[in-house]
Amino acid sequence: MVFVSRKEHFNAAHKLYNPKWTEEKNVEVFGPCANSNWHGHNFDLIVTVKGDPDPDTGFVVDLKKLSVLIKEQIIEKVDHKNLNMDVDFMQGKMASTENLVIEFWRILESKLPQITDNAVLHCLKLYETPRNFVEYYG
Amino acid sequence: MVFVSRKEHFNAAHKLYNPKWTEEKNVEVFGPCANSNWHGHNFDLIVTVKGDPDPDTGFVVDLKKLSVLIKEQIIEKVDHKNLNMDVDFMQGKMASTENLVIEFWRILESKLPQITDNAVLHCLKLYETPRNFVEYYG
Amino acid sequence: MVFVSRKEHFNAAHKLYNPKWTEEKNVEVFGPCANSNWHGHNFDLIVTVKGDPDPDTGFVVDLKKLSVLIKEQIIEKVDHKNLNMDVDFMQGKMASTENLVIEFWRILESKLPQITDNAVLHCLKLYETPRNFVEYYG
Amino acid sequence: MVFVSRKEHFNAAHKLYNPKWTEEKNVEVFGPCANSNWHGHNFDLIVTVKGDPDPDTGFVVDLKKLSVLIKEQIIEKVDHKNLNMDVDFMQGKMASTENLVIEFWRILESKLPQITDNAVLHCLKLYETPRNFVEYYG
Amino acid sequence: MVFVSRKEHFNAAHKLYNPKWTEEKNVEVFGPCANSNWHGHNFDLIVTVKGDPDPDTGFVVDLKKLSVLIKEQIIEKVDHKNLNMDVDFMQGKMASTENLVIEFWRILESKLPQITDNAVLHCLKLYETPRNFVEYYG
Amino acid sequence: MVFVSRKEHFNAAHKLYNPKWTEEKNVEVFGPCANSNWHGHNFDLIVTVKGDPDPDTGFVVDLKKLSVLIKEQIIEKVDHKNLNMDVDFMQGKMASTENLVIEFWRILESKLPQITDNAVLHCLKLYETPRNFVEYYG
Repeated sequence: MVFVSRKEHFNAAHKLYNPKWTEEKNVEVFGPCANSNWHGHNFDLIVTVKGDPDPDTGFVVDLKKLSVLIKEQIIEKVDHKNLNMDVDFMQGKMASTENLVIEFWRILESKLPQITDNAVLHCLKLYETPRNFVEYYG
Repeated sequence: MVFVSRKEHFNAAHKLYNPKWTEEKNVEVFGPCANSNWHGHNFDLIVTVKGDPDPDTGFVVDLKKLSVLIKEQIIEKVDHKNLNMDVDFMQGKMASTENLVIEFWRILESKLPQITDNAVLHCLKLYETPRNFVEYYG
Repeated sequence: MVFVSRKEHFNAAHKLYNPKWTEEKNVEVFGPCANSNWHGHNFDLIVTVKGDPDPDTGFVVDLKKLSVLIKEQIIEKVDHKNLNMDVDFMQGKMASTENLVIEFWRILESKLPQITDNAVLHCLKLYETPRNFVEYYG
Repeated sequence: MVFVSRKEHFNAAHKLYNPKWTEEKNVEVFGPCANSNWHGHNFDLIVTVKGDPDPDTGFVVDLKKLSVLIKEQIIEKVDHKNLNMDVDFMQGKMASTENLVIEFWRILESKLPQITDNAVLHCLKLYETPRNFVEYYG
Repeated sequence: MVFVSRKEHFNAAHKLYNPKWTEEKNVEVFGPCANSNWHGHNFDLIVTVKGDPDPDTGFVVDLKKLSVLIKEQIIEKVDHKNLNMDVDFMQGKMASTENLVIEFWRILESKLPQITDNAVLHCLKLYETPRNFVEYYG
Repeated sequence: MVFVSRKEHFNAAHKLYNPKWTEEKNVEVFGPCANSNWHGHNFDLIVTVKGDPDPDTGFVVDLKKLSVLIKEQIIEKVDHKNLNMDVDFMQGKMASTENLVIEFWRILESKLPQITDNAVLHCLKLYETPRNFVEYYG
């Protein structure tokens, strides 16, 4: 079994703000991340799938198809968007990288069979900054 | 003369939107960068000063002092902020990296003498993404 | 005046081989770079233009248009190609990064007016590897 | 148990082309990667071994020896080479990164005991580009 | 379960020298790393914790608190220090990255409960250089 | 004229300490950089030369020869060394990156004619950390 990864990126605005809490508590917990007028990041998303290489192609998965799938299913929905306001699958959730990566997994796991009957989703790695990142294995 | 550089970073939201234009024209010119609910970036700012090294310290400028100056004069005003709404020196200007770097220059050029009587500002380099960046020499 | 840069990339094969020389002299001068069956690189190309920001857009140049221009005029002609065999503007020239960057300049300088009447080409920076790179200012 | 990694690099040409298929089918499946005159990459290879640190040296493995082993057993055979034509252990196989990393594993697993009786091979990570990479655990 | 990581850095001097051995044997085994007057590195430390995101914050762990903990417990003790001479928890041990990462684990595992009752330590990754690094999972 | 650059690296220990000053003044000016037991860095050195490409080779300079020159003249003298104690050309000077880059220039400018009668030294860029670096043009 070989693990194959593709990196894509998107730029988005968000804030960390719990509407059940007072403004004071939000600032206490989230600090500048709670800034009411938003802030933003250049996110990097690494999608890893696993499987056996196909003898005819040498591929576990066609990385061009995987790149298109990630762009259509994830990047187009979040790039140059507000993660709190513009993204349907984040409605009612805190816009943390932890919650983002879980939602990305749900989407990609269900769509991956469109491009492969060989490979399965293994890991998503999401960088919010070069210093802060999360990983999810389902 | 030696050129000395310090890199700092900040995360901010912005949009590119000209209020003199219609919504349609803004979308036509700026595309997804005009998204009304904002998007954002991890910006990297490299400040370069030039001068002769001081024989007693070997320094053109004390980089710890330069780092503090950049943080106090620039980073605190833009980090985890909305560049269109929250930043006084960007009021009435398009929030492009070109305009940002010009305003950063005005501030840093006037404040640099607080930490050095030897070095002068040479260049600011501002990365909006690893693929898009601007430089300004005053 | 502000300097604005856009980074693109391409993957290509080449070899360094002077047909006027013997095989022995080619190996002596170029070492493994003369390998008759080619080798290759992931090239990074940084295009820098300069000009005054437009007050209506805040832009020296629209980086989306610059990106499209670089892709159409350069990347499509060299990406996943053999620089010695497949690229018309390199015929009869040594496929060094020095010669590549000079040819890229000729093309981009002549085509840049298609997307701007404000900015002019300032510098091309071409990475053959993260350790070897060239710059050209025309 | 501690995991210890060493990164090396090589530059090579290859193409993805299945000789059992027509030219049309190769282009359909592999796109520009099937370019008959080759293309190439700067590959990065990260070799990870695992074991307990030796009390006398503090080392799981001597990274200088591991570096020499990787260079002698892998890098010298693929650097500035054509992966389809010049590399004995890739004969008759598709020159994909998946197949490359499997062959690298076979070689390094058999040669690692030459430099250590303590550490065993854990993982190979092979970057074809900064955006596309594979991992193999045997 | 989501894995969350924070990267910090420090700059330190060290040498690899076993006092039980002769000078000759130290040079034979450690080469230039045994230089009696020391050498040094810019170390990068990535701390990974794992747990379920808190529904109220979206966080596995507050990365600001994790950053402060790493700085107080690790960075302040090793940054701009001599790892052999100045660091109490390295006394009597070879100053290898393997031994460093094991000691860092002992400290962080015991202190992590101060900032979270949800997340546990999963992995430490320590870069001595961009080419040499170690990982430890306890 | 084309500018050609080569990147090399070395790891060294140093401290910033002016022997004409008291211990207190050294700590006041240099902070943790004055730590008496040293600290260290992974330095990156980028050497840029300029000239016209040779029609027979396509080269401004043979980068393999430039790499060997840098290693013989600079890297071997500073790698895994103490910049204050072990390096002859730094005796009696503050071991700042500013002073290092000036000394490197003197050496390389005088030795470059050994490998080229075409190219001249243009710039040295020395990274002490990814955030602090200096440039020198002679």
